[in-house]
Amino acid sequence: MIKKIDHLGIAVLDPKRALATYRDALGLRLEQIEEVPSQKLVSYHLEIGESTIELLHPTDEDSVIAKYLAKNGPGIHHVALQVDDIEAERDRLVESGLQALSEEPFIGANGKKVLFFHPRTTGGVLLEICQVVEAESPGENGAPTRGNGA
Amino acid sequence: MIKKIDHLGIAVLDPKRALATYRDALGLRLEQIEEVPSQKLVSYHLEIGESTIELLHPTDEDSVIAKYLAKNGPGIHHVALQVDDIEAERDRLVESGLQALSEEPFIGANGKKVLFFHPRTTGGVLLEICQVVEAESPGENGAPTRGNGA
Repeated sequence: MIKKIDHLGIAVLDPKRALATYRDALGLRLEQIEEVPSQKLVSYHLEIGESTIELLHPTDEDSVIAKYLAKNGPGIHHVALQVDDIEAERDRLVESGLQALSEEPFIGANGKKVLFFHPRTTGGVLLEICQVVEAESPGENGAPTRGNGA
Repeated sequence: MIKKIDHLGIAVLDPKRALATYRDALGLRLEQIEEVPSQKLVSYHLEIGESTIELLHPTDEDSVIAKYLAKNGPGIHHVALQVDDIEAERDRLVESGLQALSEEPFIGANGKKVLFFHPRTTGGVLLEICQVVEAESPGENGAPTRGNGA
């Protein structure tokens, strides 16, 4: 079941300027700055109602976000929907013709289980589904916050 | 004050296929089909948590959505944030350097007061702010539902 919009991922060239817009001008609360070394990006999480806006800035030119920015310029990179059972949801969506970008969910930002679907099969939107998982052994598997990103 | 993500507007070429994805596969409830003659589009409102996903399909090649689709293909057209006082928010955002696309808010989908900001000044996102207004005299000014769209 889809619970809510978890977050919007916005690729930004200039985090300072983006924060001036989304935090200072719009007044959204910056709740976390997360480095995601596996994806070579820093993510600024801004709270908005039950969702977040995540400003994504690459830390390396090899980052998928750097490539997105080079091709498209800044803008909405993906939309993430929170689900209660990601494997069940994946099966249902794949069955319906959506093309998953990996067979299995993997651990993404904030330690959530995530899976992406190709925009070609979702009306032009890079769609993520994500599931919040309970930490079974703290510190073991979650994505690090302010970790050792480049 | 920003209250929440009101909706995501997604420009779609093929509403049947988009509904197969967002309503049937993702299981979102289709809560309304709204014709917006002033913008020459039909909008399919799908409920997701406290927000909606609006699938926007042009009813005329002259529609802003038709032009967007011709240039960009299907995908996220705009992000709408719900505010409690649209004029105050506009003043604050314009003061902060965001470029409004009209001086005054106007009545948009669902009778809400809406105002758009240029993507150049918002990190590449066509940003809408909108305010729910109480109907003072029902039927007078709200955008019609299943109205006389082309």
